[in-house]
Parts: sequence; structure tokens; C-alpha cells
Amino acid sequence: MPSTSALPPPDPSARARVVVANISPSIDGGQSRVKRVRGDRLAVQVDLLLDGHDKVAGLVSYRQGTTGAFGEVALVSLGQDRFGAEIALTTVGVLQFTVAAWVDEFATWAWGFDRKLDAGQEVTVELLQGIALVTAAARRASGTDGEALGNYTRLLSVEAPLADRARIARDPALALLMQRWPDRTAESRSAIFEIEVDPPLAQFSSWYEFFPRSTGRDGRHGTFADAETRLPYVADMGFDVVYLPPIHPIGASHRKGPNNTLQAGPEDPGSPWAIGAAQGGHKAVNPALGTLEDFRRFVARAQELGIAVAIDIAFQASPDHPYVREHPEWFVRRPDGSIQYAENPPKKYQDVYPFDFAGEGWQSLWQELASVFFFWIEQGVRVFRVDNPHTKPLPFWRWCLRQVKDRHPDVIFLSEAFTRPKLMYGLAKAGFSQSYTYFTWRTSKRELEAYLTEITRPPISDHFRPNLWPNTPDILPEHLQIGTRATFAARLILAGTLSSSYGIYGPPFELMEQTPRPGSEEYIDNEKFQIRSWDLDRANSLRPIIKRLNRIRRENPALQSNESLVFHPVDNELLIAYSKSTVDGSNLVLTVVNLDAHHRQTGYIDLDLAAVGMVADESFQAHDLISDARYLLRGGRIFVELDPNVMPAHVFRLRRRARTEHTFEYYL
Amino acid sequence: MPSTSALPPPDPSARARVVVANISPSIDGGQSRVKRVRGDRLAVQVDLLLDGHDKVAGLVSYRQGTTGAFGEVALVSLGQDRFGAEIALTTVGVLQFTVAAWVDEFATWAWGFDRKLDAGQEVTVELLQGIALVTAAARRASGTDGEALGNYTRLLSVEAPLADRARIARDPALALLMQRWPDRTAESRSAIFEIEVDPPLAQFSSWYEFFPRSTGRDGRHGTFADAETRLPYVADMGFDVVYLPPIHPIGASHRKGPNNTLQAGPEDPGSPWAIGAAQGGHKAVNPALGTLEDFRRFVARAQELGIAVAIDIAFQASPDHPYVREHPEWFVRRPDGSIQYAENPPKKYQDVYPFDFAGEGWQSLWQELASVFFFWIEQGVRVFRVDNPHTKPLPFWRWCLRQVKDRHPDVIFLSEAFTRPKLMYGLAKAGFSQSYTYFTWRTSKRELEAYLTEITRPPISDHFRPNLWPNTPDILPEHLQIGTRATFAARLILAGTLSSSYGIYGPPFELMEQTPRPGSEEYIDNEKFQIRSWDLDRANSLRPIIKRLNRIRRENPALQSNESLVFHPVDNELLIAYSKSTVDGSNLVLTVVNLDAHHRQTGYIDLDLAAVGMVADESFQAHDLISDARYLLRGGRIFVELDPNVMPAHVFRLRRRARTEHTFEYYL
Repeated sequence: MPSTSALPPPDPSARARVVVANISPSIDGGQSRVKRVRGDRLAVQVDLLLDGHDKVAGLVSYRQGTTGAFGEVALVSLGQDRFGAEIALTTVGVLQFTVAAWVDEFATWAWGFDRKLDAGQEVTVELLQGIALVTAAARRASGTDGEALGNYTRLLSVEAPLADRARIARDPALALLMQRWPDRTAESRSAIFEIEVDPPLAQFSSWYEFFPRSTGRDGRHGTFADAETRLPYVADMGFDVVYLPPIHPIGASHRKGPNNTLQAGPEDPGSPWAIGAAQGGHKAVNPALGTLEDFRRFVARAQELGIAVAIDIAFQASPDHPYVREHPEWFVRRPDGSIQYAENPPKKYQDVYPFDFAGEGWQSLWQELASVFFFWIEQGVRVFRVDNPHTKPLPFWRWCLRQVKDRHPDVIFLSEAFTRPKLMYGLAKAGFSQSYTYFTWRTSKRELEAYLTEITRPPISDHFRPNLWPNTPDILPEHLQIGTRATFAARLILAGTLSSSYGIYGPPFELMEQTPRPGSEEYIDNEKFQIRSWDLDRANSLRPIIKRLNRIRRENPALQSNESLVFHPVDNELLIAYSKSTVDGSNLVLTVVNLDAHHRQTGYIDLDLAAVGMVADESFQAHDLISDARYLLRGGRIFVELDPNVMPAHVFRLRRRARTEHTFEYYL
Repeated sequence: MPSTSALPPPDPSARARVVVANISPSIDGGQSRVKRVRGDRLAVQVDLLLDGHDKVAGLVSYRQGTTGAFGEVALVSLGQDRFGAEIALTTVGVLQFTVAAWVDEFATWAWGFDRKLDAGQEVTVELLQGIALVTAAARRASGTDGEALGNYTRLLSVEAPLADRARIARDPALALLMQRWPDRTAESRSAIFEIEVDPPLAQFSSWYEFFPRSTGRDGRHGTFADAETRLPYVADMGFDVVYLPPIHPIGASHRKGPNNTLQAGPEDPGSPWAIGAAQGGHKAVNPALGTLEDFRRFVARAQELGIAVAIDIAFQASPDHPYVREHPEWFVRRPDGSIQYAENPPKKYQDVYPFDFAGEGWQSLWQELASVFFFWIEQGVRVFRVDNPHTKPLPFWRWCLRQVKDRHPDVIFLSEAFTRPKLMYGLAKAGFSQSYTYFTWRTSKRELEAYLTEITRPPISDHFRPNLWPNTPDILPEHLQIGTRATFAARLILAGTLSSSYGIYGPPFELMEQTPRPGSEEYIDNEKFQIRSWDLDRANSLRPIIKRLNRIRRENPALQSNESLVFHPVDNELLIAYSKSTVDGSNLVLTVVNLDAHHRQTGYIDLDLAAVGMVADESFQAHDLISDARYLLRGGRIFVELDPNVMPAHVFRLRRRARTEHTFEYYL
């Protein structure tokens, strides 16, 4: 048995009585950055645990960036030992915060003093205890506060009736001063947590992908100059991000022919993902598209139209990439001396060499790959779609994306990972701003509700921002292959109303291309391997619906974030209904989609009134922003009928009726 | 824009490709110790995230204690990037574990090699890749494994038909050897996590509290010797922990009289919680109870009967405690020079001085208080009930309990905290082995189901072990004040079957004392302030039911832990039904309680068959372990009828019927 003196003394830090725990928002205890956008209000919450009935006080210290002085905002009690504070996120970049808390000696004293006064007890000694606290605060305080506290000390100490001095001791102005000058010598402090504050585009974006090489006249290889002429078409539909497949020189070795055949003809342009040739690699442009200057002009023209240009970064090399010759240490060498090509055994992709991210040359490789982003940032690019990030190490992305974000916090990265759920989330935690999702294959009400609920709520939504795509150059899902016009319209509206970010691969989407390469989930005559010409003016183009949808998205802030997404029960499995609303409730959008592409469906929605901030029996107007029809409704049970041959969806703006003092009714 | 060379190189640790995440069990990312008992199997789970389709391997390293060598157990895939391993907990004390993971190069190679072989591809180069991996492993390996791997290298390298060599390369024995000698140079490793392995009594315990001073003959002050004579009574009822209120000298200053009156008469014994007098403090015994040697004999006698003695540690002092004179720096001094007594304004407790846990003398105070535990451990005590721990700082408990557990891991601490939920859980995280609960006031089916579900599932159950008390010397809840015999029996059976640990304060409980001090939730003529004599042989004593319940608990391992607790729907709000079972399903207990103390209630239970491991339409025997009645049942819908005037509960052991090869039916 150790004697008392044999026990080690507790660490001095143990003297701080408050336990600071369970801070939100945070990811894995602060190991990754929580994502928000400029304009958000960050709601920090924390448990402050203090023994007994003493009062606790605390604050959130925060700063823009990772150096410099901290600002402070007081924590207020939310009940049950939970405390909260809000921080307005006004600047793009990292925001750091930490929580500090201490025993509020004056509040504790005041609480007991009041109760004793109420019970008519003698409080002479208690008053002296209060004076001692004020005297100590006066010593800590500076400026006019110090003077004011000194005055209180004197006022409380003079000869005067106890009742008068007690009244002074409980002066609300004194309580405020004491709050401002607490004794924080034994405060508890949390670790530092980080928030990545992105530009609003990271959360609310409408993407349009197209191949610039298919914009040439008369079937010729399109150039950046040709692609510029496509931009007004895209802008008119209301998109704000144009995304181009890789724009680099394309390798000739093992070049793929049309429909992914192994032998390319002399005129075949090859796959843009076979990156690198004699003309250069990841920091060069394919001469068939033009020059770097042409590209910069394309970016500038897009910018004039309110469109950001996203380019595709695919970290892999064709056998003709200059890296292969200059940096053999960045590739895996096979026992026969050749370089290891990409494989998914037994499939071989001999036109593509993967990098060896953990090989001998890993550090210089990582530095070079990060510099690729810096090169394109220099050319005006701020949005990157990253190809297959799940085939590169997570620690690489964590390092690389931080290198970029630390210097260019306005940059946005879209992760093109269609892989296992935890790996997709792992990439988001590593720093990707947005991610592709399984939406592409989720078609039933049950699937959509479960999946969208998962990805739009914390903890997932704190790091993972969904970007919903009905199609991509790689994926023509089965339901589009066999679908009707209503299928395309429904998938478009689902994507654009379920998620604040969505995208389509056009023109195949708006032209409702649906023929696959036989037996596959890919388009026939895919632009990945050949140049296509599209008749954009085809009469049945979905362009008007897309334009309407994007306008609705711009005009309704409820659709510009995902946290408020709520699904409402409908008594028909083929009808799905959900709402989104702004924090203040001023904008409330209810979407209803008929998932049956062939038949008219009817049903009753049971609107979750509490979730949308309405009261039972309230009357309101439902304004269909697609058809412009208006309905006057009352209560939460809403009848709907949707004929897919007309339009498979309603996108209602719900307007509450209000009664003014003059009994004049209007819609808010 | 930084040039490539301007970017800092990544930290060497970033080369490890596997991300190790989401380790369970763990509390707050490993900040507190997870609790288990000796005999448990610890199921460790972890996400291992690796880019692409490469194969991952990993293990859990663990050791008893915090020094010495680590043992290892391989992680196996559970699907969806989750991996698991089990560790048998054979030793009381801290167990440390950490997770290591790496890319399994050989498994990755073998997977691709098999697929290429299956596709009939030429694999000469691939075989060379495999040989290189085996050669490298042979260099790493020692002993016979090294020789064996060397042999494989030679066998694979000789001139022989490719097919023969391919067959050797895929020899399962080689795969096993390669698993044993992986390349771990770029492995990822988690932080160290800790498990507190307690003695089984920490999880499964039946407590009986009594006042030794009420065991004297003819109303005299009872002694430890008198209390010894009470032990067979307690042992016969089947309890395994006897808990005594504080046994220290009782202060005379401001001593309380009967029923908590402010003036004590000369013969009044005072409250045992007013600790300390001229005869000593926390390391002395009240002379009226006997000597330290008498106490040790009491402990030894209890031990002979299979009973552990728990004493109450209340860290507070009467004004007469030697600490007050010897260590004035351990108390708060008021401005008038007096010592601050305990308060709950406007209430004053002038017979008790709280310690100043964060004052100038805090470190020596903490050391002294910790030494109190060591003193009583020296006297043979291994179980401590700690009074009002929520009025002392959490960091104190974290430090103090670790001092004890690090030296005496078999010690158990029960937290007597009836306070806010997060503070109760905070105390459990700080190291208390068991805790009082809100069960004392939870009476409706809805309350009981919600609360017991919360406290018997992770994350709460990983640190918080409930101990359910129908009554305490401080609490005679209203439902007992107005209840019938059925109320007492029902509360007893609920406590002892809902939770693996429970306790009663006797004899008032078994004698169904129910008269409160008027207007209060306390017993009239409370033993806290006076000596009582009890007629243990009263005809209506609950003793036979208690004895039966404790026997059922001992004989049914299902009732000795809480993780398997499942509530089953009953179509009557006054009937509650729940089951517990062992991991292997061999012991399955279904309890049904009538919560109505006055009326016969009937209803149908809808047994959750999946939760109890039974199939639909299975027939089984329900054996009521209280009444010994047996029922043959089939399927999950069970009719029950309970008359509170007979017995308010069934405790069924469910036995599944099995059919042998000889078509002879019996019950497992």
C-alpha cells in the first residue's frame, strides 16, 4: 500500500473542474475538417460538465486561418449541460475554433445570495464573499470596466444598510461586468477544431459536362474556340459549372478505337483519359483542341456568362507521357523490365500506366501531382473533377488537397468515386468538396428516401456533399435505356430538387440518348472514344424543362442546401414527396415525383406539418413552379395526381397565408 | 503559385496507404476506458480503408497492463471494409490494444494471378512477380518458416512447366507462410485504446444495505460483532455484497437528532455521514461499532459466507474531523474566519464541511483522499460505495480512481449520483464501476423500456453499469409509500431481472416499511438519524421472494449481464415483458411483470422471435422459475394473466424443444 506521499501528485491541469466534451460539429474527434460555405452560420455545441450545482461559463474562441488572434463568442445554455454559440462564416478558408470553460464564481455566488435573501436569511458574510469576488475582478479588469468594478467595490464596502448594499450587489450592470472579467486561471480548454469554409458554389451548383471535341462543325475535331460557341446554350439552360473531360495530349500507344475497341484507326482521336504524349502531359493541352491561350480564353468567356469551368484531373499516364521517360521511379516496373499497366484482372488497360503512389519516388511524385493543380489554377481554373480518386491512397489526397486549399481556399474538388460507401466517405473526409453518389442507380421510393436521408444529415453531411448525376459518359443506367421522356424528366427533377448540387452529361441527356453498347451500361458510339455531332435543336429536347428547373433552383434558396430535406408519406409507392425550406421558413418547396414512367398515379400526401413549420388546419397556397398552376390548400393531407405523359412532377412553392391587423389576407 | 520544389514534401508517415478508423469499442475516441469483466470476449471492430482493389491485412496488438510485450490476433473481414477480432479477457486489470494494418501484397498478387489463370492468360511475368514477393518474405522470416519460404523460392525458380510452378505458387501452405511474414514497413497503426477488465462482481452483483448500529439487542447500539450475526440472514437470501453506511467516528458539533431535527439529545447517535471526531476521521471506525480489528473480523466472516463488504466513502468532514484542525487549507474559509459548511441555498448543513477540491491545498488533499481507499483496501475491503460523487470534480475522480485501479484492479466503485444524466455518465467515464440509476422513480412501461434500453446498449453500456435500487435510506419513493405487497414484489423483480446488478436497503424493504416523514420522500424515523430494531421474522416479510429471485439470478447466466435485454410488445400497457439470453442461446429468460398493484391484468405478448433466436412456429416450454409452473407453448404469441394478489410476475426460463435422431423429444 502506498503511503500518501508515495502517490504521485495530480497533474496541474487536473485542477480545472469543467469537463468540455462532445463538441459538434466535428468529424472523428476533430481529425478531419467539417465543411461549410461562406454565408452559413456555424452552430457550435458542447457539453460543459461541472460537479455540483455551481454555475459554468464558457466561450468559443475562433479565428480565420491557422495563425493570428482569436475572437470570442459566449456560450449560452441549451439545457441538460449542453451549450451553444453561433459564428457567422464570412470568409472562405479554414476557420479554427476551440472551447474554453470555467466555474462562474460570481454567478454561483449570486444564485445562492438570491435564494438566501428570498428566505429572509442574514447575509452579512455572504455579502463579504461577493465583495471579495468583485474586488478580484476589479484587479483583473482594465480600462473603464476596471474603474467601474472598483467603484462597485467601494459602494459595497461603505457603511450602509445591508439591504441597500445587497441591492447594489445584484445590480444587473455589475453582473454584466463580472461576466466580462471572469477568473479563468483554472479554465478547461478543448483541442482546436477546424471548419473548411468553401465558396457557396461548393454547396449549390448545377453542372453540365460536354466534350469540346464534339463541338466542331461538320464532324471535324472541335476546338476550344468551337466550344466557346456552345457556352451560351449551356448558360441559357442555367448551369453554373461546365465540366470538360481531360484536355491534355492523348497518347498514341495502345490507343483505343470507337466503342472501346483495341485497334484505333489513324483518324481516331483516342480516349482523353490516356493522358500524355510527345506534346506534353498533365500541364499541356491537346493541340487538336488549341493552345493554352485558347483554353484561357474559353475560361474567360465562360466566366462572362457566370459559368465556372471545371476540368478533369486523372492521375494516370499513357505510355507516351513525358513522365514515363523522365521519372521511371514514379511507376511500377515489372520483372521483365516493362512498366506495369493498369489492370482489373483479367482485364488489361495497356494504354494507361498507374502511378506508384507508395513507391521509392513517392514524395517527389506527390509534389509533382500537387503542382498540376497549381498549374491549372494559374490558368484560371477553380473547380476540379478528379477521376477515380479511390484508386489513389487516401493519405495522398489528404496531403495534396490541403496543399491546394491552404493556398487557394476557393478551389472546389469533385470526387468521381463510385465505390464502397466508407471509401467514398473517406475521400470526403480527406478533403473533397463534393462527391458523385449512388443516386445514379437508386430508383425506387424506398431506396431514394433511405439514401438521401443518410447523406443529407450529420455526421455524413458534415463532410460529404452529394452531387447527383442521372447519367455520365461512363454510365447510361438501365432505367434510362428503357425509359420514356418522363423517366428522363423525373430523373432530372429528382436530381435537381433532392440535392443542391447536380449535373448532367450532355447533349446525350437532354437529347434523351438511350441506346447502350449491347449488354453494357455504356452509351453506344461513346464520345469517350470518338467525335459525335449533336442536333441540339431537336424538337423533343429536354432543354426547356432543364431551363425551368435551373431557374427554380436559383429563385428558391430552399433548394440551395440539403439539411432541411424531409420526406413526407404518400399512400402510393410510386409517388415520392419531399420538402426543403430555408432556416427562417420564408422559402418552402414541396416536390412530388411520379416514379412510374408509364401510368398516371394519384395519392394523398400526409404533410409532416411540424417538420415544415406549419400548424394543423393552416391554409396555404401551393404554387407549381413547373406548370405555374396554383392551388389553395388547408391542412396536411394533400391529394396529388401526376400524369407522366404530361409532366411527372410538381415542384410546389408553398406560401403560408397570413392575416394582418387589418384582416387583409395575403401570401407571405 | 508555388513551384513543385516549393511544396513541402509529405510526412514519411503518409506513405502508409491504409486508413484505420472507427475503432469499437471505444469511448470518446479512446479518452476513457471501456469496461468489461474477466471472462468476457472483447470484440474489437475497425474500418480498414484501402484505395482500389488491393487486399488489406491487419491485426490487433494487445497486452495486459501498460508495459511489456504485445500479443497479436489477426483481423478478419466482416464485409463493407469492417474488420474484427476477438480477445479473451482472462485477467483483471487494464488491457491495452492497438490496430495495425498494411497492404497484403501477396494476397493482392494471388487474387490477380488466379483471375488471369482462370482466363487462360500467359502468366510468366506474373509468376516472376510472385517469386519476388516470396523471396522478400524469405529474407524477413526466421526459423523453419524462413527455410520453408526459401524452399518455395527455389521450387518456383527451377526449370519446370509453367503450370506446375503456378500450382506451387498457389499452394495454401505458401499462402499461410506469406500471411505470417508480411511486409509491414509501411503499416498504419492506431492510437492505443484501453479496456478496464473488472472482476465479474462489477457486472453481476446483488447488494444488501443495512445499518450495523441497528443490529444490537434490546435497542442498544449495535456493533460489528452484532452485525456479524446478521450476515447469515443476508447470505441465506442470496446477496453477495453487503453495504454499510459510513463506519467512521461521528462528529458532535451540530449533530442532527431523530428525523433530521437540528438539536440532538445526548443519546442520539448522529448521522454516519457527519464524518470525523476526536477519535479520528476517514481512517478510523466509530468506537460505538467496535475496533478496526472487529471490522476486519466482520469482513472475514462475510467472506466465508461468499459476501463482499462494501463501505461508504463520503468525502466530507464534520466540524470535529481532525482534518479541520490539521489541514485548514483543505477547506474554504469564509470572510468571518469560519469554515464554509455545506449548503444548498437556502438550506444549510452546518454539521458537514465540504472539501475545497480546487483550492490552494488541492494536490495534497487529493493525495490524502486517495489514501483513504488504500487504507480500507488494506483492511480487506474491495468494494466502495461513493457518496455524492457528483459534488466533487470529475478530474478528481479520474485521477483518484486510476490511482486505486492501477494498483488494485479488483476494486469496484459504485457511484451514488442521482443527478443530471450527462454528469452521471461523466462519472462512469471517469472510472466508476457501477452507478445508481433513475430506476428508483421509473414506474410506467414506457419509462422503463426507454430508460433501460438507453443504459443497456453501447455507447452508454460500454462505460456505465447500472445498479437498480427500489429504495435507499434517502429514498422511499411515492409508489412504495402507497403501494401494496405486489408493488414491493414487482419493484424487486424488475430490479433483479432488468439489471444484472441491483440492491435493496433492508430490513425496511423486505419488511415493506412505507411510512414517510410527512410530506417527504424519506422514511419516518430514519436509521440515518436513530437506531431502529427490526422484527426480521415478520410473517409477511418478502424474504422468501428475495431468496427465490437471487437463486434464479445465480442459476441463470442470462440474467448476469445486460447487453441481451430485449423488450417484447404486450397489448396491455400495465404488463411489461422482456427477455435476456446468453450469447450461445443456451439460457433464455423471459420476465413478465404486472405493473398494476391492484388488479389482475391479462394480455398477449408478441415475442420478438428473431431477437431471442427462435424460429416461427417453434414449440418450447416456459418454466416459471418463481411458481415452478410449466407451460408448453408454440409460436411467438403468448397469453399471460397475472394476479397481483398472488404474484405480480412470471420469470420464465424458455426451453426450446429439440428432436433427436430417435425422434425422442426433450428440452434443451
